[in-house]
Amino acid sequence: MSIETDATIADFGGKLLKLKHSAKSTNCEMKFNLFIPGSASSSKPAPVLFYLAGLTCTGDNGAEKGFFQNKASEKGIAVVFPDTSPRGLKIEGEDDSYDFGSGAGFYVDATKEPYSNGYKMYSYITDELPKAIFSQFKELDSSRVSITGHSMGGHGALTLFLKNPGKYKSVSAFAPITNPSKCPWGEKAFSGYFGENDKQRWSEHDATELLPKYPDNTDILIDVGTGDNFYKQGQLLPENFEKAAKDAGKNVKVNYREGYDHSYFFISTFAGDHVEHAAKYLLK
Amino acid sequence: MSIETDATIADFGGKLLKLKHSAKSTNCEMKFNLFIPGSASSSKPAPVLFYLAGLTCTGDNGAEKGFFQNKASEKGIAVVFPDTSPRGLKIEGEDDSYDFGSGAGFYVDATKEPYSNGYKMYSYITDELPKAIFSQFKELDSSRVSITGHSMGGHGALTLFLKNPGKYKSVSAFAPITNPSKCPWGEKAFSGYFGENDKQRWSEHDATELLPKYPDNTDILIDVGTGDNFYKQGQLLPENFEKAAKDAGKNVKVNYREGYDHSYFFISTFAGDHVEHAAKYLLK
Repeated sequence: MSIETDATIADFGGKLLKLKHSAKSTNCEMKFNLFIPGSASSSKPAPVLFYLAGLTCTGDNGAEKGFFQNKASEKGIAVVFPDTSPRGLKIEGEDDSYDFGSGAGFYVDATKEPYSNGYKMYSYITDELPKAIFSQFKELDSSRVSITGHSMGGHGALTLFLKNPGKYKSVSAFAPITNPSKCPWGEKAFSGYFGENDKQRWSEHDATELLPKYPDNTDILIDVGTGDNFYKQGQLLPENFEKAAKDAGKNVKVNYREGYDHSYFFISTFAGDHVEHAAKYLLK
Repeated sequence: MSIETDATIADFGGKLLKLKHSAKSTNCEMKFNLFIPGSASSSKPAPVLFYLAGLTCTGDNGAEKGFFQNKASEKGIAVVFPDTSPRGLKIEGEDDSYDFGSGAGFYVDATKEPYSNGYKMYSYITDELPKAIFSQFKELDSSRVSITGHSMGGHGALTLFLKNPGKYKSVSAFAPITNPSKCPWGEKAFSGYFGENDKQRWSEHDATELLPKYPDNTDILIDVGTGDNFYKQGQLLPENFEKAAKDAGKNVKVNYREGYDHSYFFISTFAGDHVEHAAKYLLK
């Protein structure tokens, strides 16, 4: 199905498109935002950075509050802001909690009923959405794609990168869930989407377990605020990811940012750094 | 009454404070946001830019979506994001429309009953709020203050600047209502706050009428989007303001920005330019 445009908004010298399409993987209409820099054209297509949002978010939060567009415009990079789950599937309980079901797809393909009917955000983000975008927007370059994300979306960015060597030119994350098998958010989500006992599948979507298996070295940028309550509660566990990196000889840089919290004020402060990180690989 | 702090949020190397205080002029508790750059201290106090928001907004919109902090941090300028009206006064009808009453104080002191009881945003913004801020935050410099604003807040910025020569070092505006006596929004607000017949008072709060009376030359920066529906509907009338400037020999620069709308995507795109404009006067 082709993508429909709900709005075209002038933004930082380019345009922010509010888009929707009927998605097979998630069995519903999916909305998302796409920033195309003013420099992009079909003869000079722009590379693309995917920004995966966190729990409770839609594709709007990053577009309105993340301020990726400022640096992306300067660098000539497009940014995709997808939604975080299917919507309106009418699965019993899907809207009951903020950290599971709608707004909390965790970028996995659920295997457990009833969520296996539509909660396929892994396939949606890695396959169906990029195919739909690149077949329609000729001013974007499908051969140059990077990924970043926040919190649950940081988990998404890290795992999608690590599971698909070569697919993304670079990865970075803001306050990511790095070891979901060992934190309450991840345990709840993986139990619900995979079942409590399918620990093999859990490990296949756990960045800390995936990192040592990655075939090349890495250059992963992570920012975490020391004032982030979810960091303090042990939902993010960046130290586990750092230890795995050290043990495996992988290059991972975690910046612990004094006093910063989990909000979009934190993200917007460091968004420029993450676009720069992607630009190193997208523009070389 | 002293200002209470609801939250302190690390932001662009400084901090965003979510504040509230009991205000006499508006007869209620007023909330606002204050960004203090990391460079500010009591021995090196920062100059201050007031950002007045538009219809329906609170002090949160500009702080979350305006992107002023990026350039303000770089320049060492603090930014105040006040609310747009009193709240909860229980005046009959005050919550009935988006363009009058709550969220729509128009930065005037109402003289007509019942709004004369508390709808005193002119006194609040020019007098009570700055006094409260500067008596409490010694890292801010009360002698260096500029003002900007959006839409209704652009009207506020222009009129407060023009009515108080010397009080503000500079002024700029995003898609401002420049001639409220001649547009539907202004006619409704001034009729409700001043009465239909007090045209003298209307003219005292109309930037296009105030501009020729300003005792010095000006350097006023205005951005307006050509895709702004409120511009197209004749709510903003920047051409009237430009004509008044030309006739009076005042320096007013209106940039008509191709395709931009009235949203915070427009504001965030040009926020850096407006902070630069203020910095020319605040930092010299």
